[in-house]
Amino acid sequence: MPKPTAILLISCPDQRGIVARLSGFVYEQGGNIVDSDHHSDLQAGRFLGRIEWEPEGEDFDRAGLRAGLALVAGAMGGKWELHFSDARPRIAIACSRQEHCLLDLLWRHQAGELGGELALVFSNHELLRHHVEPLGLPFHCLPVAPDTKDAQEARQLELLRRERVELLVLAKYMQVLSPSFLAAFPNVINIHHSFLPAFAGAQPYHQAHARGVKIIGATAHFVTADLDAGPIIEQDVVRVSHRDTVQDLVRKGRDMERLALARAVRLHLQRRVLTYDNKTVVFE
Amino acid sequence: MPKPTAILLISCPDQRGIVARLSGFVYEQGGNIVDSDHHSDLQAGRFLGRIEWEPEGEDFDRAGLRAGLALVAGAMGGKWELHFSDARPRIAIACSRQEHCLLDLLWRHQAGELGGELALVFSNHELLRHHVEPLGLPFHCLPVAPDTKDAQEARQLELLRRERVELLVLAKYMQVLSPSFLAAFPNVINIHHSFLPAFAGAQPYHQAHARGVKIIGATAHFVTADLDAGPIIEQDVVRVSHRDTVQDLVRKGRDMERLALARAVRLHLQRRVLTYDNKTVVFE
Amino acid sequence: MPKPTAILLISCPDQRGIVARLSGFVYEQGGNIVDSDHHSDLQAGRFLGRIEWEPEGEDFDRAGLRAGLALVAGAMGGKWELHFSDARPRIAIACSRQEHCLLDLLWRHQAGELGGELALVFSNHELLRHHVEPLGLPFHCLPVAPDTKDAQEARQLELLRRERVELLVLAKYMQVLSPSFLAAFPNVINIHHSFLPAFAGAQPYHQAHARGVKIIGATAHFVTADLDAGPIIEQDVVRVSHRDTVQDLVRKGRDMERLALARAVRLHLQRRVLTYDNKTVVFE
Amino acid sequence: MPKPTAILLISCPDQRGIVARLSGFVYEQGGNIVDSDHHSDLQAGRFLGRIEWEPEGEDFDRAGLRAGLALVAGAMGGKWELHFSDARPRIAIACSRQEHCLLDLLWRHQAGELGGELALVFSNHELLRHHVEPLGLPFHCLPVAPDTKDAQEARQLELLRRERVELLVLAKYMQVLSPSFLAAFPNVINIHHSFLPAFAGAQPYHQAHARGVKIIGATAHFVTADLDAGPIIEQDVVRVSHRDTVQDLVRKGRDMERLALARAVRLHLQRRVLTYDNKTVVFE
Repeated sequence: MPKPTAILLISCPDQRGIVARLSGFVYEQGGNIVDSDHHSDLQAGRFLGRIEWEPEGEDFDRAGLRAGLALVAGAMGGKWELHFSDARPRIAIACSRQEHCLLDLLWRHQAGELGGELALVFSNHELLRHHVEPLGLPFHCLPVAPDTKDAQEARQLELLRRERVELLVLAKYMQVLSPSFLAAFPNVINIHHSFLPAFAGAQPYHQAHARGVKIIGATAHFVTADLDAGPIIEQDVVRVSHRDTVQDLVRKGRDMERLALARAVRLHLQRRVLTYDNKTVVFE
Repeated sequence: MPKPTAILLISCPDQRGIVARLSGFVYEQGGNIVDSDHHSDLQAGRFLGRIEWEPEGEDFDRAGLRAGLALVAGAMGGKWELHFSDARPRIAIACSRQEHCLLDLLWRHQAGELGGELALVFSNHELLRHHVEPLGLPFHCLPVAPDTKDAQEARQLELLRRERVELLVLAKYMQVLSPSFLAAFPNVINIHHSFLPAFAGAQPYHQAHARGVKIIGATAHFVTADLDAGPIIEQDVVRVSHRDTVQDLVRKGRDMERLALARAVRLHLQRRVLTYDNKTVVFE
Repeated sequence: MPKPTAILLISCPDQRGIVARLSGFVYEQGGNIVDSDHHSDLQAGRFLGRIEWEPEGEDFDRAGLRAGLALVAGAMGGKWELHFSDARPRIAIACSRQEHCLLDLLWRHQAGELGGELALVFSNHELLRHHVEPLGLPFHCLPVAPDTKDAQEARQLELLRRERVELLVLAKYMQVLSPSFLAAFPNVINIHHSFLPAFAGAQPYHQAHARGVKIIGATAHFVTADLDAGPIIEQDVVRVSHRDTVQDLVRKGRDMERLALARAVRLHLQRRVLTYDNKTVVFE
Repeated sequence: MPKPTAILLISCPDQRGIVARLSGFVYEQGGNIVDSDHHSDLQAGRFLGRIEWEPEGEDFDRAGLRAGLALVAGAMGGKWELHFSDARPRIAIACSRQEHCLLDLLWRHQAGELGGELALVFSNHELLRHHVEPLGLPFHCLPVAPDTKDAQEARQLELLRRERVELLVLAKYMQVLSPSFLAAFPNVINIHHSFLPAFAGAQPYHQAHARGVKIIGATAHFVTADLDAGPIIEQDVVRVSHRDTVQDLVRKGRDMERLALARAVRLHLQRRVLTYDNKTVVFE
């Protein structure tokens, strides 16, 4: 059982002494830094950093750490988050009729790979219930039609709130979330079945087949109100040839979708992802 | 010294007995097939094939083979080409100011990798002359301005004709060839510095950096009048991260451009590429 | 519902007229070749080919085809197999305590990706029974100890025979099959958790970590009496860095194991794999 | 023209406060950290870090910085190096008869990619002289035979000393450097034409072809007295198939050799590589 670590993610205007002040703070608190990484985007004048450390003692004062950081990091004028490695974030998965990403996440969850707590699954279809409930997880079927969309999104938000969900993962959920949903719950990762920005929109494998590309891909990204245009977290690709039909692209692409989505979720839950300017910084 | 082989490329409406008739013809002529590959696009109803064989005897009758094939393959109602592996096709390279693709092709030419004869290089700039002439190759500087474009393209075409050039390779040639040029000389391969169709057009690395993609690529394709939309022959990709500036993308991308372009040229000169429906079939 | 196809795999001494005779036979029988691919290993003097065709008629005479081929292909003096695409081969999976490859195969089986019929699972442990039986598949726990190994292998062979299993897939089965087992049932695919021949033997991820490699891999291969030295069907790789612990290599490697094993099984079941000289030819 | 930066590489026993003390020192000196990255190998109890910063002022006191660091970093009990980004390290290249890696490095040198100053080339053959001298670089032909090896290594070492060379790059140099050479000049990077540790020793492409692998690779590593067993800096791989002859593997492998070697040299010259326990940490 490793000792719990504290993880600081910070994004602020670049300025002299940031690393010294942050690492000095950790040192004064008796902490031992086990991993630190930072990146200055000189063009954007922005400092982006991640520091992970072992706080001193078994029962270290978490509120105290947070209060201390509020002074040190807060003075730098940006955004910061403090996480603890033993606080497992709660996740919800949304799916529709395709099971491959759901099953992959469920398997990684059981294997302890994801680094979070799976709280619930919701879907606009009944179809995948039998994969979820045997694991002791709640499955909520919330069918969406044009006239019920607002009400169903309200129910989804209520579920997420009630279950204290921090991250929603769209595992081939084929509904577009409304801007008001995203305003209320912005922490959403989606998997798009193309190498974005190529083939945004519907039927990317059909588009890729028609265009005759030699490589296809998948893209895991944060969801924004602008469809398929949110910050990209992870992408993966696979070679295809003229022998591959659209169905072959779909099959080969599924593997890339599974890998890219799982990696993105894990990176995010390990607090390795920061966003700025519609892009991500991934500390790995 | 391997024996010369004959290579048939054929694209025709799918029908029963094509392979039997073609391989039967080769057999009757005493040939020994060393490689054959075919693909039927059932959706398009099209047969696409490549047969390579060792004809019988040292001084086999090439014109006779061609005449025989005109009867057999011609009856199938499509397009076919007959090539001989010892007839080295003549190539021209066009470049502008960036040297990496030119140097790579020159090196592969010297190393015997390309499988063709380099006949000449032309450019709209003087800059790269010193890389070409020491190798004993002619370098033609043909500056292009809006009012001289027609005249210069006429000179380019005259050069290609005079030197019996079969393939023109655009190695970072930063001029758009006119539709009339392409009508007169359609066999042109270009390298685009993005993973098409993502980031078509100008400054793809700037676009990729702004979009925050995690993988960049390069695309070698046949040139058509529709810019960056011709049949794709080969693509390659490389991972990038938030640490990479636009200049880093340019540097990393250059390696992919070099590889993708060289592979596409080699595949084409080995008679492994057929096009149909704005796509390629690559027999490898 | 596509029409069933006939698939011929043939390996024989290279000689003139093979393609003509085989495709001529198909044509005489009224068949339409949809895919044909052959490779001559000139050094080994060996012809290796695959022909897939649509036989004429709904109820074509399978025994007649086989008898006809016995004359044509048999005369060529090598080995040949005739398969039909609608005859789904029966597969068994062997596993031990790690579930990732088993679950992946089970999922692909349900998704219709594998192209075979899953007949049974056996294991030397009870641990994974709950993943198998809910799918309606038999799970046989056959613990192996030094003094029971012969008896258990006899039971395994009996199971494979009784269930008419054609292919045994070792999905992280941590027992070495005896030479006599392999003599009785030679059609076995294994997944090794390294990029063979690097790190053969035990604990390849520990070896890879100690050696400090920058890329790790997985290898799917046919099993032979010579451990980890059978013909390689498929390999895949993933980048690692100094930040990756042995546990990270294990986690990243699992994804490559899943992909490489599933691809190898699918390629084999689609009758795209031939072996000779302890190597494979993969027609894809 | 970017401002010069100072780069600290440090490897020492892990202990509390390292980052705070180092970044505190930079801050006290008025420096602005632009990039910092560190890794603690908890198992080995070792801290490995890289800090890059812009020192204050145009004409900052380099000797003073070094003296200050000697106190701060020296007290931590490990090894440290201080570099300045505008001090271009001097490189020598050794080659034999194959030109691809030499030409690639020469091209990258001209393109400003390498980040060092090319001081000289030596070879045990005359063959590649014409590629080097036209660039104004000295080419020393030092043929090596069993009885002249000691004397020639003495001349090589004298050349390296006289030209103040910091890094020797073996660009397909087919001689083994003696332990005494390496004791006198240990900073040597080699490219091995296989995915080490697979196929160490002679003729790796022949070995790979005989084994029937589906992926081949190249490995750039520091040279140690133990042949092909030094710390690995970079590896790259490419897919091959049964159609590829040994000559095709050689051709495809050359591209991977060029890429892996160039990346390794660049990473090292950017002071991004630390070694410990016969492994590397690559800060990228």
